[in-house]
Amino acid sequence: MAKCVILLSGGMDSATVLAQVRDAGHQCYALSFDYGQRHSAELAAAQQLADTAGVAEHRVIRIDLGQLGGSALTDTQISVPDSGGEGIPVTYVPARNTVFLSYGLAWAEVLEADAIYAGINAIDYSGYPDCRPEYVQAFQQMANLATKRAVEGHPVEICTPLIGMSKQQIIEAGLQLGVDYSATVSCYRADANGAACGHCDACRLRKEGFTAAGVADPTRYLVE
Amino acid sequence: MAKCVILLSGGMDSATVLAQVRDAGHQCYALSFDYGQRHSAELAAAQQLADTAGVAEHRVIRIDLGQLGGSALTDTQISVPDSGGEGIPVTYVPARNTVFLSYGLAWAEVLEADAIYAGINAIDYSGYPDCRPEYVQAFQQMANLATKRAVEGHPVEICTPLIGMSKQQIIEAGLQLGVDYSATVSCYRADANGAACGHCDACRLRKEGFTAAGVADPTRYLVE
Repeated sequence: MAKCVILLSGGMDSATVLAQVRDAGHQCYALSFDYGQRHSAELAAAQQLADTAGVAEHRVIRIDLGQLGGSALTDTQISVPDSGGEGIPVTYVPARNTVFLSYGLAWAEVLEADAIYAGINAIDYSGYPDCRPEYVQAFQQMANLATKRAVEGHPVEICTPLIGMSKQQIIEAGLQLGVDYSATVSCYRADANGAACGHCDACRLRKEGFTAAGVADPTRYLVE
Repeated sequence: MAKCVILLSGGMDSATVLAQVRDAGHQCYALSFDYGQRHSAELAAAQQLADTAGVAEHRVIRIDLGQLGGSALTDTQISVPDSGGEGIPVTYVPARNTVFLSYGLAWAEVLEADAIYAGINAIDYSGYPDCRPEYVQAFQQMANLATKRAVEGHPVEICTPLIGMSKQQIIEAGLQLGVDYSATVSCYRADANGAACGHCDACRLRKEGFTAAGVADPTRYLVE
């Protein structure tokens, strides 16, 4: 039984990872971030998921990425667009995964944890540079040199089990483990109760995933 | 003229780096962290140094490393020892430089900055894994893959000009640039006014530096 830090956003990917780590019999330490994201209903979802999974501990760390700006997810001056568009989307948050994994690294060292799990996914979010396997490998190399525990012979493993999976595959894997996707929030413009807009990139990818998996979409959408 | 983010703790190393970057004619964006450190007089020193240098902007980001614990600098349950001791000291803060540089990376991307400067020093702090050149190189490799700007052909350079210098060399370089070291705070147990204990590792290294440089130590010490 390993001790694992799981970055838990409250979205479907990290909910699936939490279920996988729990199913493997490991001890789960869930870490969420209040980073000024518009879709703060995510955090309520993360709390519910952590409670349901019976994690050993759930921490929510408040961080100031919103103060730095530069993203439609944290800066109210930039609108979240409907789905579509070329290149790296405006919903990209500068260095977000690097900041999140760094906090994961700090907590993992204090806990003497063996691994950090993150629901990073390269297929659907190919526009985000910090969702690619080569990025995760480089973070691992850096982490191997960064901490007292690593230097003493106990490096922490950075695990991204969903990195090569499609949304369909993620949903299928999660349903087999009993993940309740109605308790997850993906929408970039979700309201305070977690109801989804149905139109942003995150909603589109999620909808397509349920369709491809051939299961009913349990998402609550805003009535327009 | 380049745009540079400078991690400014308020200690003598980062004060020297700020003076170097300013002397080179670059635009300075100073970034400090309120991370629950005991020696918060550091932050007042950082503010004063930033004002004196006339930086383009100075941001103080409040971060929750103290909540994660594991260090004498942030956890009041662990005492800061007097100087001496073997191995990695209890004043080591888990993954601190990784978290700090990650925020630097985020702000550098928003600012479209060319470089991030940090007063990391390998000689005097050989006990800290995240102060070694191989760590900084690995962070650079990771940063080259982490951000939208890097992927678009504008990687940010991680610069640690003091990494191979002794405290004596740092003090000599700083004095040539007019750094007022009486305005810096190094002590791990400094009081609210920045007066130093004179006995912790940070004080000892600083004292030895002034002695080796053959200049008067301008530090204000606590009267015992």
